[in-house]
Amino acid sequence: MRTVAWDETERALHLIDQRLLPNEYRVTAIHSHAAAAEAIQTMVVRGAPAIGAAAAYGLALAGYESRAESTADLMDDLERAAGVLRTARPTAVNLAWALDRLLHQARRFSGSAADLRAALELWANDLAEEDIAINRRMAEHGASLIADGDALIHHCNTGALAAVDWGTALGAIRMAHRQGKRVHVFVDETRPRLQGARLTAWELEQYGIDYEIIVDGAAGYLLRTGAAQKVFFGADRVAANGDVANKIGTYMLALAAADNGAPAYAVVPASTVDLSTAHGGLIPIEEREMSEVLNLSVDGRRTAPAGAAARNPAFDVTPSRLITAIVTEHGIVYPPYTRNLKAIVGG
Amino acid sequence: MRTVAWDETERALHLIDQRLLPNEYRVTAIHSHAAAAEAIQTMVVRGAPAIGAAAAYGLALAGYESRAESTADLMDDLERAAGVLRTARPTAVNLAWALDRLLHQARRFSGSAADLRAALELWANDLAEEDIAINRRMAEHGASLIADGDALIHHCNTGALAAVDWGTALGAIRMAHRQGKRVHVFVDETRPRLQGARLTAWELEQYGIDYEIIVDGAAGYLLRTGAAQKVFFGADRVAANGDVANKIGTYMLALAAADNGAPAYAVVPASTVDLSTAHGGLIPIEEREMSEVLNLSVDGRRTAPAGAAARNPAFDVTPSRLITAIVTEHGIVYPPYTRNLKAIVGG
Repeated sequence: MRTVAWDETERALHLIDQRLLPNEYRVTAIHSHAAAAEAIQTMVVRGAPAIGAAAAYGLALAGYESRAESTADLMDDLERAAGVLRTARPTAVNLAWALDRLLHQARRFSGSAADLRAALELWANDLAEEDIAINRRMAEHGASLIADGDALIHHCNTGALAAVDWGTALGAIRMAHRQGKRVHVFVDETRPRLQGARLTAWELEQYGIDYEIIVDGAAGYLLRTGAAQKVFFGADRVAANGDVANKIGTYMLALAAADNGAPAYAVVPASTVDLSTAHGGLIPIEEREMSEVLNLSVDGRRTAPAGAAARNPAFDVTPSRLITAIVTEHGIVYPPYTRNLKAIVGG
Repeated sequence: MRTVAWDETERALHLIDQRLLPNEYRVTAIHSHAAAAEAIQTMVVRGAPAIGAAAAYGLALAGYESRAESTADLMDDLERAAGVLRTARPTAVNLAWALDRLLHQARRFSGSAADLRAALELWANDLAEEDIAINRRMAEHGASLIADGDALIHHCNTGALAAVDWGTALGAIRMAHRQGKRVHVFVDETRPRLQGARLTAWELEQYGIDYEIIVDGAAGYLLRTGAAQKVFFGADRVAANGDVANKIGTYMLALAAADNGAPAYAVVPASTVDLSTAHGGLIPIEEREMSEVLNLSVDGRRTAPAGAAARNPAFDVTPSRLITAIVTEHGIVYPPYTRNLKAIVGG
């Protein structure tokens, strides 16, 4: 299973359609940068690292789509395509990070347009391969924070489905399990899109890790009664001061952890740390359509009244004071974050 | 609309079947104490005050069911029926409170068995009528805490559907609206049973009060960004020290309120205050079947993997330090709760 994969022969981006899991495992083939942007926007692919890799391949596709004969003309087409991809979703910084990385390489490229097209494909492959290596290192650092017998609360999906492979917070849990530690995972179902109930539970089934799904509001009870001892999540963007933008509900989960003296760990690749964003209040928070909140059914009956209105912020910001440590591929970062994130990420 | 009503002619308890709302408004007729207990257990009727009234009518039904000819034999049958009703749900203290009140009256009754049967019906009617009057007084006290232009977060359903009429926290909001104050209600959908999305939204539609449904995890974001300023909920039991057992998720909501300096108000009838329970750790927390967590569908597809496990605690305990005030029919109680609750409730 590879969440984001490249088909060399067909020059196509292959994505596991995560909207269909756990009912159906289907891989969809993407042949244009516009289709890649749409796949990101409609959440065929989601998860900050996975979005970054998908955007990189989207730019490689834009190279092959372009009719430009000169490198300069091709560069113009790439910049335009990057603009389309960049606006697909606003919160995860990995999207912009991946595009900027490939554009930076492209701008310094001195060969022909044909060579640049081939180079873009290689750079996207490099980025995807690096993502796996980075996530594996993160998983190892994160696993060191998990003890034999721990019961953890995990928010959203941060596993292999959120990255090219391994993932972030769930990668750490998977690594701890592989190291022979017994872990129990309380899986926040993660309303509104239920990535926990749909994707994290599905992944944990594959790995043979013991879990129970809970409603997001139950995490506080489990922490307070001692049934769970630690909290793990990923992030879509980490500000320079350590504030963490992540899936809606993370802030309340981190509050519950802090109120019970339980550590709360954010596991993120360095590419998710955005030193140019001073604090979390500056991170744009995506508001998605209200149908995501209202479209539930139980026993075939819709639950909300017809015509009901909803607010649907997709992310929230957890202030750094509630984050015990930020786990990156370079190691575990503790407060003070402003200094220590810069030392690891900016260095 | 009367959530819990008595049909004198048929000697039947009429309940709005809340499991069918908002799709269908159906009143179900209950003719035995066992059927009343089952209606409470399966949540045809829910909400602490409503459960209390339904249990009182359940005991009245037991009187008419009994073949006892002597008052003593009838009393034995009533005690047995109260045992069945009492165990229907464990957390809301109003259930036991209502049964104890009627049993206490019955034990002191000196007339014939036939007269006791008629008296039970009258006492249940009295309890239901008092519930309305009490809730109306609570609503008036609670409304005094709501200012024109407030945006509130409300958890679960605490409206007319949770009581005989008016309700607790939602009654206060309805009263503020009736007083001409403009209020906006962010309705926690309240997983797992979605009483917010299903019942509170439906009630707010009836009252013409402006609202938006949110996922429970979004409350922290709305408080932190200033979109919401106050938090209102009911309770299933309040311990002597002011700890509040209420629908799962309340604790995390109260944490989010406290972290942002927003007041969190519990609105409860005095019958919900249980001075015999010293603190919240002693309140039994009902765990319900895992299907309530797992039985969601979106677009006709079940969301959790087949065979997934879940934990489903139905309530949590919010420590009194997170509760700004407890609104009762006797007035607004502020800390220190141990002293002030006793003064109001025990007096």
